[in-house]
Amino acid sequence: MPDSVAPVADAALDAQLRAKIDAKTKPLGALGRLEALALQLGMIQRSLEPTLVRPHLLVFASDHGVAAEGVSAYPSSVTAQMVRNFLAGGAAANVFASEAGLEFRVIDAGVTSDFAPHPALIVRKRAHGTRNMLVEPAMSKDDAAAALEAGAAITLDLARAGCNVVALGEMGIANTTSAAALVARLADLPVDTCVGRGTGIDDQGLARKRRVVAAALARHAGARAPMDAVAALGGYEIAMLAGAIIGAARARMTVIVDGFIVGAATLVARAFAPAALDYCLFAHRSAEQGHAALLEHLGAHPLLDLDLRLGEGSAAALALPLVRAAAAFLGRMASFESAGVDGPADGGNTA
Amino acid sequence: MPDSVAPVADAALDAQLRAKIDAKTKPLGALGRLEALALQLGMIQRSLEPTLVRPHLLVFASDHGVAAEGVSAYPSSVTAQMVRNFLAGGAAANVFASEAGLEFRVIDAGVTSDFAPHPALIVRKRAHGTRNMLVEPAMSKDDAAAALEAGAAITLDLARAGCNVVALGEMGIANTTSAAALVARLADLPVDTCVGRGTGIDDQGLARKRRVVAAALARHAGARAPMDAVAALGGYEIAMLAGAIIGAARARMTVIVDGFIVGAATLVARAFAPAALDYCLFAHRSAEQGHAALLEHLGAHPLLDLDLRLGEGSAAALALPLVRAAAAFLGRMASFESAGVDGPADGGNTA
Repeated sequence: MPDSVAPVADAALDAQLRAKIDAKTKPLGALGRLEALALQLGMIQRSLEPTLVRPHLLVFASDHGVAAEGVSAYPSSVTAQMVRNFLAGGAAANVFASEAGLEFRVIDAGVTSDFAPHPALIVRKRAHGTRNMLVEPAMSKDDAAAALEAGAAITLDLARAGCNVVALGEMGIANTTSAAALVARLADLPVDTCVGRGTGIDDQGLARKRRVVAAALARHAGARAPMDAVAALGGYEIAMLAGAIIGAARARMTVIVDGFIVGAATLVARAFAPAALDYCLFAHRSAEQGHAALLEHLGAHPLLDLDLRLGEGSAAALALPLVRAAAAFLGRMASFESAGVDGPADGGNTA
Repeated sequence: MPDSVAPVADAALDAQLRAKIDAKTKPLGALGRLEALALQLGMIQRSLEPTLVRPHLLVFASDHGVAAEGVSAYPSSVTAQMVRNFLAGGAAANVFASEAGLEFRVIDAGVTSDFAPHPALIVRKRAHGTRNMLVEPAMSKDDAAAALEAGAAITLDLARAGCNVVALGEMGIANTTSAAALVARLADLPVDTCVGRGTGIDDQGLARKRRVVAAALARHAGARAPMDAVAALGGYEIAMLAGAIIGAARARMTVIVDGFIVGAATLVARAFAPAALDYCLFAHRSAEQGHAALLEHLGAHPLLDLDLRLGEGSAAALALPLVRAAAAFLGRMASFESAGVDGPADGGNTA
């Protein structure tokens, strides 16, 4: 996956955007994090009036061989059942996407079961789940590279269809185990920091999950280059998500990153294309152990902090209205001058 | 203002709502704070399927005699100018209300200037701003009581028109000074905790503002009963907001509380009608000094934490999509049973 992502840096545009934000009828800085968000949107779109066009929620689903180790509270069958729930419109991600005006797509990146064709389903799998990373690499390097390319193709296709913002989510029983291993490897964080309760395992399960991740890291101790690490420890949905982020960044789309697993994919994307991070904004701080450390490692400041730990892109969908609000105030709010509102007594705030 | 607000407590409904939330296709508790929000909405509306009908953003505006003490970075003229900006649709609150689908109303609770009639303007003033609380009570007790009743009448009228959720905001140069004094008095918090930079005063201005609040509290040391405190230290918009909260609670409407000033009004409302708090949800933790302490005093857990400090109801409008999402998942998300999704291996999570 060659790096062809351009950084957003542009000093002149940055200054213009800041001046425009500061001229709005509000005390300097009073919109806090939304001002940084508006600035980022403008930089991504190279525009003083960024707009969100045809936003999509993409949920990448896959199964994981490591589920055989008893690392999840739920059986692997739930991955396919939840894909069917997505296609029927019954999951949290569907409801939140619908409320936020996001078009919804599920990508079968490597689910064990197969599905009948459906307008919201995109099938891109080369295998029915990964192998068990505890005993062998989860994927071949060829499969990992193909998953990355497939992910990039999906967002590039969407960009050609006019979409300029993608919210990313995932579904895959045992994928917090894979994500924890990848984060531990690529961010060089301790296993116990990265491994959490996922869908809600008990203390015994958590201890087992930590042993599994530590053992997988030991078995694949040499897998340190990004593609080696993804192949050994990753999942198809995680690799495809990383590709989707890179593809979106190439097309100068805004990427809304969901929680821990999409965050792990962001780490993978950054390893291949450092500037991809410029296009990412982070929906929330998940209650999943490891996510706070990952966000800190990425230098990310998430928008929401609501103790969510569902995945599916649910938090990314919940964050979209804030992104819309940032674009809207930049585009539509009056300036002190246009509204005839006096600035502060010291004059420092007038347009 | 007689207390006729019923607590929402209903053990049977509480249990039914929790069971419904737990049966949704998600790990137990995985929607975090949104689950508590869905529960609160259900309890307020006495329904397993709460819905938001005709949500309104109400911005109460008034002037403050204490502005003469140089406690704000902006001149008093800005209150009326911002009311005109609201009526022209150019303020942050307009933009965010429009994005969130909120009907917008400005209430002239006591602005120094007068305005031409406008479909979005509700005029309820008895005076052109308060008097300077540093030298005399801001209002008479009769005026304070009338403002409370006028606020209650506004939300009760909206309830009769079918609206069941109100987001509350305010505009009034120097109103963080009045709010700080009220919070210090009613929550018994130190002046330095309650007084912040408002629209952005400098260190010297902050020191002056603290002296003004301390002096006002000393001058009105006997004004401890709620109506006495509101009359001595309050503002017309704050009193009307407190009444609006009580009226909304009487009508079993959901109230979305904006930042520090509406928070102060919530404290006033609680003093008259303790159960009114059951109907309030808190949009955000403001960057304004004193808001965190006020939220803690109220036992409130705000939804957003984005370093906002604009007021106007801007954060309340930004929070509405989260409230919609909570109602939507409770109403529309599939259950494990309806979607045919397996529960956890230990069976504890199935419907």
